[in-house]
Amino acid sequence: MKNYQMVIRYDGTRYKGWQRLGGKENTIQDKLESVLTKFMKTKMEIIGGGRTDAGVHAIEQVANFKTKEPINVYDLMDYFAKYLPDDIAVTAVNEAEPDFHARFGVKKKTYLYKIWNKKYSEPFLRKYSMHVTKKLDIEKMKVAAAYFTGEHDFTSFTTARSKSKSMVRTLYSIEIENQEGLILIRITGNGFLHNMARKIVGTLIMAGSNDIKPKEIPNILLSGERARAALLADACGLYLEKSEY
Amino acid sequence: MKNYQMVIRYDGTRYKGWQRLGGKENTIQDKLESVLTKFMKTKMEIIGGGRTDAGVHAIEQVANFKTKEPINVYDLMDYFAKYLPDDIAVTAVNEAEPDFHARFGVKKKTYLYKIWNKKYSEPFLRKYSMHVTKKLDIEKMKVAAAYFTGEHDFTSFTTARSKSKSMVRTLYSIEIENQEGLILIRITGNGFLHNMARKIVGTLIMAGSNDIKPKEIPNILLSGERARAALLADACGLYLEKSEY
Repeated sequence: MKNYQMVIRYDGTRYKGWQRLGGKENTIQDKLESVLTKFMKTKMEIIGGGRTDAGVHAIEQVANFKTKEPINVYDLMDYFAKYLPDDIAVTAVNEAEPDFHARFGVKKKTYLYKIWNKKYSEPFLRKYSMHVTKKLDIEKMKVAAAYFTGEHDFTSFTTARSKSKSMVRTLYSIEIENQEGLILIRITGNGFLHNMARKIVGTLIMAGSNDIKPKEIPNILLSGERARAALLADACGLYLEKSEY
Repeated sequence: MKNYQMVIRYDGTRYKGWQRLGGKENTIQDKLESVLTKFMKTKMEIIGGGRTDAGVHAIEQVANFKTKEPINVYDLMDYFAKYLPDDIAVTAVNEAEPDFHARFGVKKKTYLYKIWNKKYSEPFLRKYSMHVTKKLDIEKMKVAAAYFTGEHDFTSFTTARSKSKSMVRTLYSIEIENQEGLILIRITGNGFLHNMARKIVGTLIMAGSNDIKPKEIPNILLSGERARAALLADACGLYLEKSEY
């Protein structure tokens, strides 16, 4: 038995997310498994590190798969380059330790969120960022972000659809920088519930536009009331950027 | 009479280039003039600094237009932000000297060209770069580029469609850098003939993939034979980046 790690980059615009849904749904995992199955000439399964939602992108999604016999990773990469649609790219394939598991082994994940904060649009980022026309107060967003770091029950910042047993996660950092109107938010944590990154960003946007006070955030976290984290930031601004094992 | 300078950024993918074609053609100039005409409530014309081709982008296209009365440039920018499609953005409007002319006044222009040089695709640049899968020799491309700088008759590097009276242009510099597979080529000159930037880039790609020897370039320039500059690089990789007046 051999175990391989792969790194995938994708534009999630036209997909229903990472996760295979069974049947004819268009997902990243389906596309990758179908090409890998053709290469291996036997039904293959791929384990992904993060289940990105419909429309969410990945700069680096890590995955793994097992084979009975060793494979030539360069041949496989060429095969992926040839047969994958051009909005999905396998950027690396390497042999991994036998016990490497892309999903259970992940220790830290970083999500990047892009906000375009000018009245006029950004032609090259219009499908790859959330356009917020109201001028955001970055300092207030930073104050708000600080309330999220540490260990919290994130029930208020997920959706009823979330199937996780525990709603407790630890965020290590939220970094916010403004590059002349392009606001980059990087959230690093030990795990993310369904929609959690987008609901946190939505709340940061509300703080930055004076729709809530940053100091209300601890109460929203404690309340466990999903309706109080009211803004779900657009999927198209979110990128799975990095995973650490 | 007042004269205004404006700066425009656009994703050229869905347009037939900058230049108004008359009738129902979809061009950047048409879109801008139509919104400006509505704002001014009188038929308006805009003069563009560079006539980008169908599919070519602009990071900064400079233009100007004249009005009888002074206008509020902030109101106009808001109006553009509201009524332009989101792949065209007016990023600045300022009052200009009475004799400022975006087309005749331009002294230097820089075009940026993006090549993605890996076997696998770049999901986020697939519509904004040329994908060259064969590994390019950057050093050979730099040697080739040096033959283009200076004053030359660029007849071989244009198309029969070019209506310019003189085919002589001066290129000040061609800079090539490789950012982990993303090759950026910046060409600065006093003017560019129709398709000239794309034919020069095409020839640099041929040099980088050993399809021609760099030292053949002076002869191609001297020959005036268009067929010898055989490769026209894709429109989607080209950006008008900067104009100096």
